[in-house]
Amino acid sequence: MQNRPHVLPVDLAKSYRLLNHGPTVLVTSKSGDKANVMAAAWSMPLDFSPPKVTVVIDRNTLTRELVEASGEFALNIPSRALAQMTLAVGSKSGRDYYKPSDAVGDAAVNKFSEFGIATFAAEKVAAPLIEGCLGWLECRVIPEPHNQERYDLFIGEIVAAWADPRAFKDGHWSFEPGTPRSIHYVAGGNFFETGVSFEVE
Amino acid sequence: MQNRPHVLPVDLAKSYRLLNHGPTVLVTSKSGDKANVMAAAWSMPLDFSPPKVTVVIDRNTLTRELVEASGEFALNIPSRALAQMTLAVGSKSGRDYYKPSDAVGDAAVNKFSEFGIATFAAEKVAAPLIEGCLGWLECRVIPEPHNQERYDLFIGEIVAAWADPRAFKDGHWSFEPGTPRSIHYVAGGNFFETGVSFEVE
Repeated sequence: MQNRPHVLPVDLAKSYRLLNHGPTVLVTSKSGDKANVMAAAWSMPLDFSPPKVTVVIDRNTLTRELVEASGEFALNIPSRALAQMTLAVGSKSGRDYYKPSDAVGDAAVNKFSEFGIATFAAEKVAAPLIEGCLGWLECRVIPEPHNQERYDLFIGEIVAAWADPRAFKDGHWSFEPGTPRSIHYVAGGNFFETGVSFEVE
Repeated sequence: MQNRPHVLPVDLAKSYRLLNHGPTVLVTSKSGDKANVMAAAWSMPLDFSPPKVTVVIDRNTLTRELVEASGEFALNIPSRALAQMTLAVGSKSGRDYYKPSDAVGDAAVNKFSEFGIATFAAEKVAAPLIEGCLGWLECRVIPEPHNQERYDLFIGEIVAAWADPRAFKDGHWSFEPGTPRSIHYVAGGNFFETGVSFEVE
């Protein structure tokens, strides 16, 4: 991505690999002048080509409102350095932070400003991408009203994908010792890092 | 479970935690005298109460036929010791192994016998559970024909859950050094172990 050497494009055919090992993600969304971020442990790849994902977005969240209004979202894959923020944005509602910009001057108050989360523009969706993540999936909602209403389940097509080449390059994760790892949430503030890699035949 | 000290019941309200960190699972199924096992990296929790999961089951698999016929399946969470088997049963179709018992004498030939996979009986579903796994989720399909046909996407309600207390006890994973870890598949025979645990506030 322009002026961002740590954000390189990922071949869409291999973009499912960013999610295949089950990391916890940050869901970003934007509609009009509202933007938000929440955490989601419940997401998975759904298809290779065109690549699709599923993610559960609770009906009580601000993210739900923004995703339904815009038909778009992004999945950001945080490293351990972002775990505290991941827990925080997963525990607090954007509704409790959001104040429109006309109430506060130039800048809207939202979860991003509240938690000091830096973002940059995505290429194909309005949802912002979060700085310091290991990978990013830009997604367009494939409308499935029954799933959305009954199960809070959203299906998205991946329309652009990016990764930090220090962690994911040429379609492969490379968590060398000392490099940032993706994270896997369990419950109650407890996470696992992605551990050692191994290969079997 | 009777005579199985390493298979203890898991409170259904906490059963989602067996899957929350995104491990790769083995999907077992049985219908009539046919049984099968396949690997699935694409599964996730869908709800807390009643607990539900999603899993992608390709339309070309024998598992698909057995799950649709029986309305049941089980998710088995393998440890690293089972990674080679996990890759093998994820690469081969049960259709290539299955021979009905009348063709081979008393015992049906299937993926279990072909790969020497030991199983034990589940409590609430016909699908067998795999020895040596870290956790087991017995599931009944919630029929969603549109999802199944269009996306190969299945929704199951967890009706019983079990875990090896050496790995998961009182609702918490405990991957101490030297104890078996769950695994996370990427592609091409490449896995990650579940890594170190950490807590944030």
